[in-house]
Amino acid sequence: MAAIDISQVLIEALPYIQRFSGKTIVIKYGGNAMTDPGLASAVAQDVVLMRCVGMNPVLVHGGGPQVSAWMRLAGLEARFVDGLRVTDEPTLEVAEMVLAGKINKELVRILNEHGGSAVGLSGQDGRLLVARQLTHPPGLGLVGEVTAVNTSLIQELTRAGHIPVIATIAAGAGVPGYNVNADTAAGAVASALGAEKVIFLTDVAGIVRDGKVLGQLEAAQVLELVQQGVISGGMMPKVEACLSALQAGVPRAHIIDGRVPHSLLLELFTDRGIGTMLLP
Amino acid sequence: MAAIDISQVLIEALPYIQRFSGKTIVIKYGGNAMTDPGLASAVAQDVVLMRCVGMNPVLVHGGGPQVSAWMRLAGLEARFVDGLRVTDEPTLEVAEMVLAGKINKELVRILNEHGGSAVGLSGQDGRLLVARQLTHPPGLGLVGEVTAVNTSLIQELTRAGHIPVIATIAAGAGVPGYNVNADTAAGAVASALGAEKVIFLTDVAGIVRDGKVLGQLEAAQVLELVQQGVISGGMMPKVEACLSALQAGVPRAHIIDGRVPHSLLLELFTDRGIGTMLLP
Amino acid sequence: MAAIDISQVLIEALPYIQRFSGKTIVIKYGGNAMTDPGLASAVAQDVVLMRCVGMNPVLVHGGGPQVSAWMRLAGLEARFVDGLRVTDEPTLEVAEMVLAGKINKELVRILNEHGGSAVGLSGQDGRLLVARQLTHPPGLGLVGEVTAVNTSLIQELTRAGHIPVIATIAAGAGVPGYNVNADTAAGAVASALGAEKVIFLTDVAGIVRDGKVLGQLEAAQVLELVQQGVISGGMMPKVEACLSALQAGVPRAHIIDGRVPHSLLLELFTDRGIGTMLLP
Amino acid sequence: MAAIDISQVLIEALPYIQRFSGKTIVIKYGGNAMTDPGLASAVAQDVVLMRCVGMNPVLVHGGGPQVSAWMRLAGLEARFVDGLRVTDEPTLEVAEMVLAGKINKELVRILNEHGGSAVGLSGQDGRLLVARQLTHPPGLGLVGEVTAVNTSLIQELTRAGHIPVIATIAAGAGVPGYNVNADTAAGAVASALGAEKVIFLTDVAGIVRDGKVLGQLEAAQVLELVQQGVISGGMMPKVEACLSALQAGVPRAHIIDGRVPHSLLLELFTDRGIGTMLLP
Amino acid sequence: MAAIDISQVLIEALPYIQRFSGKTIVIKYGGNAMTDPGLASAVAQDVVLMRCVGMNPVLVHGGGPQVSAWMRLAGLEARFVDGLRVTDEPTLEVAEMVLAGKINKELVRILNEHGGSAVGLSGQDGRLLVARQLTHPPGLGLVGEVTAVNTSLIQELTRAGHIPVIATIAAGAGVPGYNVNADTAAGAVASALGAEKVIFLTDVAGIVRDGKVLGQLEAAQVLELVQQGVISGGMMPKVEACLSALQAGVPRAHIIDGRVPHSLLLELFTDRGIGTMLLP
Amino acid sequence: MAAIDISQVLIEALPYIQRFSGKTIVIKYGGNAMTDPGLASAVAQDVVLMRCVGMNPVLVHGGGPQVSAWMRLAGLEARFVDGLRVTDEPTLEVAEMVLAGKINKELVRILNEHGGSAVGLSGQDGRLLVARQLTHPPGLGLVGEVTAVNTSLIQELTRAGHIPVIATIAAGAGVPGYNVNADTAAGAVASALGAEKVIFLTDVAGIVRDGKVLGQLEAAQVLELVQQGVISGGMMPKVEACLSALQAGVPRAHIIDGRVPHSLLLELFTDRGIGTMLLP
Repeated sequence: MAAIDISQVLIEALPYIQRFSGKTIVIKYGGNAMTDPGLASAVAQDVVLMRCVGMNPVLVHGGGPQVSAWMRLAGLEARFVDGLRVTDEPTLEVAEMVLAGKINKELVRILNEHGGSAVGLSGQDGRLLVARQLTHPPGLGLVGEVTAVNTSLIQELTRAGHIPVIATIAAGAGVPGYNVNADTAAGAVASALGAEKVIFLTDVAGIVRDGKVLGQLEAAQVLELVQQGVISGGMMPKVEACLSALQAGVPRAHIIDGRVPHSLLLELFTDRGIGTMLLP
Repeated sequence: MAAIDISQVLIEALPYIQRFSGKTIVIKYGGNAMTDPGLASAVAQDVVLMRCVGMNPVLVHGGGPQVSAWMRLAGLEARFVDGLRVTDEPTLEVAEMVLAGKINKELVRILNEHGGSAVGLSGQDGRLLVARQLTHPPGLGLVGEVTAVNTSLIQELTRAGHIPVIATIAAGAGVPGYNVNADTAAGAVASALGAEKVIFLTDVAGIVRDGKVLGQLEAAQVLELVQQGVISGGMMPKVEACLSALQAGVPRAHIIDGRVPHSLLLELFTDRGIGTMLLP
Repeated sequence: MAAIDISQVLIEALPYIQRFSGKTIVIKYGGNAMTDPGLASAVAQDVVLMRCVGMNPVLVHGGGPQVSAWMRLAGLEARFVDGLRVTDEPTLEVAEMVLAGKINKELVRILNEHGGSAVGLSGQDGRLLVARQLTHPPGLGLVGEVTAVNTSLIQELTRAGHIPVIATIAAGAGVPGYNVNADTAAGAVASALGAEKVIFLTDVAGIVRDGKVLGQLEAAQVLELVQQGVISGGMMPKVEACLSALQAGVPRAHIIDGRVPHSLLLELFTDRGIGTMLLP
Repeated sequence: MAAIDISQVLIEALPYIQRFSGKTIVIKYGGNAMTDPGLASAVAQDVVLMRCVGMNPVLVHGGGPQVSAWMRLAGLEARFVDGLRVTDEPTLEVAEMVLAGKINKELVRILNEHGGSAVGLSGQDGRLLVARQLTHPPGLGLVGEVTAVNTSLIQELTRAGHIPVIATIAAGAGVPGYNVNADTAAGAVASALGAEKVIFLTDVAGIVRDGKVLGQLEAAQVLELVQQGVISGGMMPKVEACLSALQAGVPRAHIIDGRVPHSLLLELFTDRGIGTMLLP
Repeated sequence: MAAIDISQVLIEALPYIQRFSGKTIVIKYGGNAMTDPGLASAVAQDVVLMRCVGMNPVLVHGGGPQVSAWMRLAGLEARFVDGLRVTDEPTLEVAEMVLAGKINKELVRILNEHGGSAVGLSGQDGRLLVARQLTHPPGLGLVGEVTAVNTSLIQELTRAGHIPVIATIAAGAGVPGYNVNADTAAGAVASALGAEKVIFLTDVAGIVRDGKVLGQLEAAQVLELVQQGVISGGMMPKVEACLSALQAGVPRAHIIDGRVPHSLLLELFTDRGIGTMLLP
Repeated sequence: MAAIDISQVLIEALPYIQRFSGKTIVIKYGGNAMTDPGLASAVAQDVVLMRCVGMNPVLVHGGGPQVSAWMRLAGLEARFVDGLRVTDEPTLEVAEMVLAGKINKELVRILNEHGGSAVGLSGQDGRLLVARQLTHPPGLGLVGEVTAVNTSLIQELTRAGHIPVIATIAAGAGVPGYNVNADTAAGAVASALGAEKVIFLTDVAGIVRDGKVLGQLEAAQVLELVQQGVISGGMMPKVEACLSALQAGVPRAHIIDGRVPHSLLLELFTDRGIGTMLLP
């Protein structure tokens, strides 16, 4: 590449680095970006770069398919109601084990291999996520909704230069814990931390209408698109988490394409952006 | 109990509280104390009390039997050489998942239920345990020996009032990680932290000769007992970890009976002590 | 004592240690607990233990009988109006000397002998107690009521790990100082410090009706008992100091039996409590 | 006074203020400067000014005559060996009471009346002076020599803007305390604090030979003057304390005339100095 | 001078040192005090003394005549409207160069020669003065009025013990900078810093009526004197800066005679004061 | 540019950002990069980017030609001995004025326009550069060599997030100041700060032999090239400053081509580097 092109990229990144310096960015990590080793490695580089230029990235992840696989090995049957996993105690045990002990630690390792200092946590650690039972739909068992985010542990870690990586098992009262939806948890973490942005890494190009990605939407427009059925299915929990984060004071929520390598970088450090940005 | 007896216990504890205030105590957690819910709950109370009176307890744990159980479910065969688990990549994945995602988080939850603020970590987190391959005996695969303990993360957590709980998977170079012996790791953590004591919770009453627990032994005496065959078998790794910690400057190492409820308390806060204390 | 009993006492103390950690407890020291060497030693142990488990004890004391004795030696006559010592300048000089130079330093010495780091102060030091003349009853001379507590000196000392011990001579304007009632001063110190509790060590079992100690009373109930004459005499200044502290935001005030060894410990660290607790 | 003279005085003081800013100056307070109210008030102004311009003054005082007076009232006989008070337990009690409760608190009050924030302490407080029995001459009883100065309490107080005022009763082991010579204690405090100067306020003009005050002397010259008998009697303990402080690394020791009002100011802030300065 | 006179001066200064300790004093430096080397040296001594006794002096200066001289050398013509310099880009360049590179650095050097640690700045440094174009009178070009004072740089420097010296060129938007009136800038700096005082060093004795300096005036009285024509001409910008500072919360503004050596000292450290003090 | 190329540039920069984070980089600014507005603006962007990604850039500059121009206007004749400007007092005055008031403030303004917070200083400020007279060659007058760099002011500013910009006029003893060579001063500042690198922005491509830029040279090789006459003339002071900085412990010195836009960026953030790097 020509020297002039290199400088141009770096200089184009400068105002973004300035704007986001010292700001918290919560990233919901999932989909192909998590399961494809090449994409995972690119995300790790992006996150380490974010940290290096002064941002405070915080990662939140779930991991549905791998939980189901280990449940099968343990002789447990995976059942879902409205897309939410019915969770009894043995299921919770497997979910926590797979999320906090396998997916979480793999992500920690990749981040550290790229020079970061990641620290993996579940919501049980320092009781950083506290939840109560989700009652609608009924019959889900130990599925919870986040009622409190204990931000001090996360802030201690970011202040010391670490990258927190959070598996979405929450602490509860009188139960061994709760399984919480990772999209919703990411939104809750973002608003509790006063984050500048929450970014959802997904397997779609963004919110699409008539085959075109919509670059920017206000909350009111999003609600219309939901009513019109343009937004539906698997996109719903992400959009709901976005809206709830915006309402709780997070200034920007992004749905970006995790299948594009370095999509985080392109979103954060270039003029073009990528995917759909949601505003209050 | 009579008021006079209550006061006597508390007053007897006073000099121990003073002596250990601000000191780091590393506890190797294992055996019945880990698998029996009642004992586990008592250990949690003891550790939370330690924290409350100003000590910095750090827990280190393994979890062999549960790893083997999940290996079986995953269709992997558990093999051992000299008591050490032969560890290929699939085995390591299961070991990390079970240690860091299951045993670790259960312990975190129990500690938090008793009012602590525990944070569970594996050696991958912040690369707090770094290891290289163990070459003797050969053929063990991804079994490592600790070469560095990155104490800053542990110290940040203890300074902020948390109780670190460490699963003994270590980071490595060019490999996904290493399985390390929890006894040895506890000794390494204790010496890296400049701990005041390392305490091994075991399923025996201490080092025993002629049916009697030996209350106190110097390193030289221990070596003699090994040569005489008084110390052997499963006690060897613990004794070696003790000796290595003593040599690295930890002033006291204890082998105590985890089957006795609150044995930690009795060891730390009473004149009588319990089990065997090893001195340099 | 059986090991099980020892553990039980310590574990019973745990929630109290947690609840009071970092909290300020003001203790009005007086009566037999001050003059009986055995009791004084037990109080010192209790206070040092409080400090060791993270509380911030602050002691406030008077010392009437010893002041009168030294006045006699100096050829001064002790006179009282409504139980308050008529205080001219020579009397004040003797009172300050005996309180700040004798009783205060003895208490400091005993606390230090039990491993504390006590620092003795009078209200003149750093002008930590400021008073104006008490005008009712008239004719008392240099008897004052506290108008300001300069908490910064006390807080610097507690933050540095010391135990402040305060003799109740106050600074004034245009006079060499004021003699202030120690019960009242203890209440004023407690409310200025935002203390969690103020505890009066007395020579009675608590507030008694029909031969029975009343375990707990609300402020309104106390006022009734005063009107009924159940509370009267020497108990009045203590009760008034309690009520005034409760009104100024101190959550709990205790009148306990200083003649029982370690009564402070029993009150603070056990489920049974001791004496009478007053609530707002 | 003419404006030009006023400016000249202030400007002459400037280099001294710069030189001593942040430095510790230990002042042995005694003699007329302590007993004459006008002189005491002038000393207080000087010390408060020192503090205001950034120095850390620390006062050390004894108070022999007043101790003897109160001993008489208490029916105790004052006896001296080699100028040192024979001290049994009742004598120590009176000495501590008079020094720490009367002289100390009077000085605290005067300093505070001039805008300082003085805090009076005895060597028992925070065990800031620790002594062992003085064995030569024999038969002195509880007369001690300082073996340790616990500087942390003094430094905490100076750092927080206070002026420590120290009565020279020391803590001991197995005894209620020790009476220590104030001159010697001042030297010990100065060297423990790494003071810039120790200044002895005396009732003489300085070290005098042939009717002339010697402005400056090196340690070797002082020893000669002692051998020649030019220095003797009551000057000896001061000179010995000076020499011992110089030897322990205090750069300057001063013997100045406390009978001259504001002699401290003249010594510290003017080109002329006053009294005798001793150098290593 | 007699010792007694020396002490008197220092003791008279004590309450002023106490009152102003830690307080910010902004000094508008100009007139003879700036151009006469002897007076400049005396001002430097005064300012260094202020710093030494704990005040935070901040100097603000202009330098009209020297700017005009260098403009002539550069072939530029100096033009004024309503006493304000018409400022095109070449004029601004010369003004910045002379103010920030010559007058500023000379003052820094003199302060440092007297033991201070002065740091010279223009309003461009850290954008500490931000201005917008002054529109009345029209036609002034790059003459600005201060819209923001970025106090953090000034405070960092004072906290580290330095004396900030500020040349009154301001940063602007879309222009190379603005020339701002030094009197007005001093007032703006004083109110932004929450200064205790702003002092104008002038070439007059103060505000004079009927040949007599008025020692003290309230804002309302000042306005009357302006209406009566008693205050007019070159005194107007100073008086306006004073009034604006008072209105913005600065408690005291002083107009003093910079032709009297050490007039700052006399104003700050003596009972007599000097010049005119303006109150809100 | 393609998204993939953008990511590649940013990811290539990552290890350099990590390596230099928190490190001090001293940049000698001069030549075309200073006089060409487009290049100056590019340098400013580069420096602000360095700061944003966690480096501590410190700029050092001279400004010969502009000093000579203003000397002419002031009627002074510019004379040189061995390439060094003969400096009498009037010359020094002009030099300080032009360097510290004109060039320095322009650079500050450009840096701030690109989002930095630059603070311009001369060596007089906080006496950050102290020099003595240069005696070889004789007859240079107020030309100095740096004897001390007072790093505390620079470090306070960088710690607070500012970019120090230093004009090379030094403080002296008994003289108004010294003119010091900017190349040499940059080397002295780099070694005093423990800088990671010193970078000379020049008007050449680097050290050239046989028409080819030498990418990397050790100190010994440089000396050979000097002896062979390959390095000579205007390159000599730069090379000498490099060697002296290397000898004083700066690990790397760079001579790069300031005529290439963003040459700083290319040197610091890409694998290719630019110009000549000198190693110890």
